[in-house]
Amino acid sequence: MKNIIVAQSGGPTAAINASLAGVIRGAAKSQVYDKIYGAVYGITGVMDDHLVDLTEKFQPDSAEWARLYASPSSYLGSCRFRMPDAADQPEVYQQIFATLEKYNVGAFFYIGGNDSMDTIDKLAKYGKSIGSEIRFGGVPKTIDNDLVHIDHTPGYGSAAKYIAATMLEVAHDTYVYRQPCVTIVEIMGRNAGWLTAAAALARTAYSKAPQLIYLPEVAFSGEKFLADIRKLLETEHNIVVAVSEGIRDAEGNYITASDAVNDLFAHAQLSGVGKTLEQLVKKELGVKCRSVELSILQRCAAHISSETDLRESAELGEAAVRYTEAGNTGFMSSLLRTADEPYTYELKMAELSEIANMEKSIPRDWINTEGNDVTEALLRYMRPMIEGEAAVSYTAGLPDYEPINHLTGE
Amino acid sequence: MKNIIVAQSGGPTAAINASLAGVIRGAAKSQVYDKIYGAVYGITGVMDDHLVDLTEKFQPDSAEWARLYASPSSYLGSCRFRMPDAADQPEVYQQIFATLEKYNVGAFFYIGGNDSMDTIDKLAKYGKSIGSEIRFGGVPKTIDNDLVHIDHTPGYGSAAKYIAATMLEVAHDTYVYRQPCVTIVEIMGRNAGWLTAAAALARTAYSKAPQLIYLPEVAFSGEKFLADIRKLLETEHNIVVAVSEGIRDAEGNYITASDAVNDLFAHAQLSGVGKTLEQLVKKELGVKCRSVELSILQRCAAHISSETDLRESAELGEAAVRYTEAGNTGFMSSLLRTADEPYTYELKMAELSEIANMEKSIPRDWINTEGNDVTEALLRYMRPMIEGEAAVSYTAGLPDYEPINHLTGE
Repeated sequence: MKNIIVAQSGGPTAAINASLAGVIRGAAKSQVYDKIYGAVYGITGVMDDHLVDLTEKFQPDSAEWARLYASPSSYLGSCRFRMPDAADQPEVYQQIFATLEKYNVGAFFYIGGNDSMDTIDKLAKYGKSIGSEIRFGGVPKTIDNDLVHIDHTPGYGSAAKYIAATMLEVAHDTYVYRQPCVTIVEIMGRNAGWLTAAAALARTAYSKAPQLIYLPEVAFSGEKFLADIRKLLETEHNIVVAVSEGIRDAEGNYITASDAVNDLFAHAQLSGVGKTLEQLVKKELGVKCRSVELSILQRCAAHISSETDLRESAELGEAAVRYTEAGNTGFMSSLLRTADEPYTYELKMAELSEIANMEKSIPRDWINTEGNDVTEALLRYMRPMIEGEAAVSYTAGLPDYEPINHLTGE
Repeated sequence: MKNIIVAQSGGPTAAINASLAGVIRGAAKSQVYDKIYGAVYGITGVMDDHLVDLTEKFQPDSAEWARLYASPSSYLGSCRFRMPDAADQPEVYQQIFATLEKYNVGAFFYIGGNDSMDTIDKLAKYGKSIGSEIRFGGVPKTIDNDLVHIDHTPGYGSAAKYIAATMLEVAHDTYVYRQPCVTIVEIMGRNAGWLTAAAALARTAYSKAPQLIYLPEVAFSGEKFLADIRKLLETEHNIVVAVSEGIRDAEGNYITASDAVNDLFAHAQLSGVGKTLEQLVKKELGVKCRSVELSILQRCAAHISSETDLRESAELGEAAVRYTEAGNTGFMSSLLRTADEPYTYELKMAELSEIANMEKSIPRDWINTEGNDVTEALLRYMRPMIEGEAAVSYTAGLPDYEPINHLTGE
C-alpha cells in the first residue's frame, strides 16, 4: 500500500486544520492508502524531509481529531515558497520527488490558496512528464474568498462570522453615547472585498451598523466618503463604517499612499487605512472618530469559528483523497452551491490551471450603485457560511487547542 | 412601596449588563421595592427624566433576563458626566432629586467606575444633608481593574479572558513560519497594567508566548526593550510581546510622545504604542515585525465572556439592593477574596469616599525584577477570573444579544 503526505501553506486560517483533519479522515477510510505523513512548513518540509506521522495521532473522530479540527492556524506550519518552473530549477522537483519516493507516497495533498494551487499544478505536470504515478491534489484555503472555480473558500466563513459578530459588538459599544461618533473598522482584503462585505451580516432589526461599507472593487473618493458621513450625521448619532484595507482611489493608488491623504498627513503611510480615515474625519468634520483594525484576529479567532465552514473544509479535504483514489491528479477539490435557502451544495473537482493565477472579486452588481454598501444578493450569498458554532472545549478558561510543540520547540 | 432607579456609566464592558441584571433580580426579590426603572444615558437620564420601566421586561431568570445578563456594552447607555459639587451647582442636585421624588424612589444604583462612585458618594452626602431617605448604592464596573477596596472589578475577568484567548490564537498564528518574527500586541490600560498582565494567562505547556510583557507600572526603556528581543531571538524564532498602551519612559512621558521616538518618526504620535514599537524593531533589529491593537474589542467581546465574571457582576448588583434594604447608603458593593485555590470570596460593602479618587496599580512584587514579565503570584490572582464560559445563544450565526432600540432609534 502507498502512503500519503499532506502539507499546509500560505496564511493561517481558522479552518485550515479542519481540512487537514478531513484529509486524515479520508486516508483512514481509504483502502488504497496506508500511512499519512504531514510535511512541516509546507512544501519546504518535503524538500527538507521534515515529516511527522499523523496516522496514529489523529484517529478520525477521536478527541484529538476533533481538537485538531477546531484549532486555529496551520498545525503543520506554513511557508511562503514560490515553486520555480521545472525547466529553470529541476533540482527542486528532483528533491521533492526523492522524498515522495522515499516514503512510498501515492498521493500528495497541499492545503492552501493561489500559490499552493500553482505548486500542485506544477508538481502534477512534472509528475506526468516523468511518468510518475503519484497523484497531486489541492485543497482550497483562504479567508480572502478570492479563488475562482469554487463557490466560496474554506476559512472565509469563519473569518466572516468573526467579523460579523465583532461588528455587532462594536455597534453595541458605540451606541451607548449620545454624542455624535464615527467608528471606522478596517478589515482585511487587499484586492477583494469579501471579508469587508461580511460586516453587513452584523445588521439587526435594532441596528443598521455598519451604515457604510467601502470595498476595493469600487474606486474610493475621500470627498464622497466625507459627504456620506455628513449626510448620515444629519439623522443619526452613531455611524459605523466598514472599510477594506485595499481601497484605492480612481487612479488605483492605495488610499494611504494617495496624494490627497499625503497632503493632509506627511507620514500617514505609517498607518493603515482606518487610522488615515479617522484623521480625515476628525480634521474635516470635527466629530469624534475612532478606528479599529481587526488585523490577524479575523483569521485566527477559532473560538468563534463557523461550523458550516469547518464541516465543508473537512469535506473538501476528505474528497481530495477520494478523487486521487479514483486516479485523478492535478485538481483542486471544490464546492458548487446548488441553492441558497435552504443552503445546499455539491463537491466536485476543479481544474487547477485557471485557479492558480486568477482572483475573484465581488461582482459589481452585488455592490450598490453608490458604491458604499452591498446588495441583498450578496447578503444571500454570505448568510449560510456563518451558520453554526464550532464546538470548542475550554480548559482553565482558555480554548483547548491542539498543541504545536513541533513548531514551538517546547 | 418605593421604587428603584438604576443607571450605567463610563466605558462599556462585557459584564455591566450582568450587574444590571443583578440589580433587577435584587429588586424582584425585594419586599421593600416595587418597580425598577432604568435611566437612559447614565445620570443624565435622571436629570432629563428619560427612564424605561424594566420591571416586566426582565423577569429574573426569564429568557430576556438571561440575554441581558450575557449582552455586551451598556443596555441603558452611558454618559461622561462629572458630577459638580453641590455647593457650586445645587440645581443639578435639585433636578436629580426632583426626578427621584417624582418616581417615588427608595434607592438609586449607579453601575460604573471611579467617576460613577464619586457621583454616588456626592448624591448620598447631599441626600443626608437634606434629610432625604433615598438610599444610594454603587455597583463597581471597569475592565481596568483599578478600583481600590475590591479584590477585582466586574468586567475585568471577561476582558482578561478575551485577551488571554486572543493571545493564544495569536501565538498559534505566529508559530507557523520559520522566519524570525516579532508580534507586538497593544492592550488597554492607561495607568494600570492588569489587562496587559492577563496576556500571561495565554501561556501553555507548548507555547511561552507572550515572552515579554511591558506594563505602565515599570518605566519603559526602548534600549532595554530591544535588548530583550535581541536576546530572545538568539534561541527563538517567534517572539510575542504584550505591551500596555500606557507605558512611559523614566521621565513619565508616554512612549508615543517621548523624544526617543519622535527623533525616529516625526509623526509617530498619530499611531499607538504597538505601531511605534513595531517601527522601532524593524529599524533597529531589521527583523519582520507586526503589531496588533486589541482596541475596543477587549471590552465588548461578550461572545467569550467569563462566566465567573458575569456571575460575580450580577451578585454585586443584587447585593447592592439588599444593602439598601438594610438601610445603608453611600457604599459600593464589593468583593473580598478568601482563597485562591479553590477560589472563594465574600460580598461586602466598601466605603465610597476612598474609592472615588484612587487607582489600584499592580504591586511591584507581582512584576519580575527585570520589569518585563509578571510573577506567579499575579498569575494565581488572575486565574480564577477567566474560568467558565458565558452561555451565549446564536441566531443565524450571530450572538443573540438584547436589542437596544431605545439607543439606536430603530
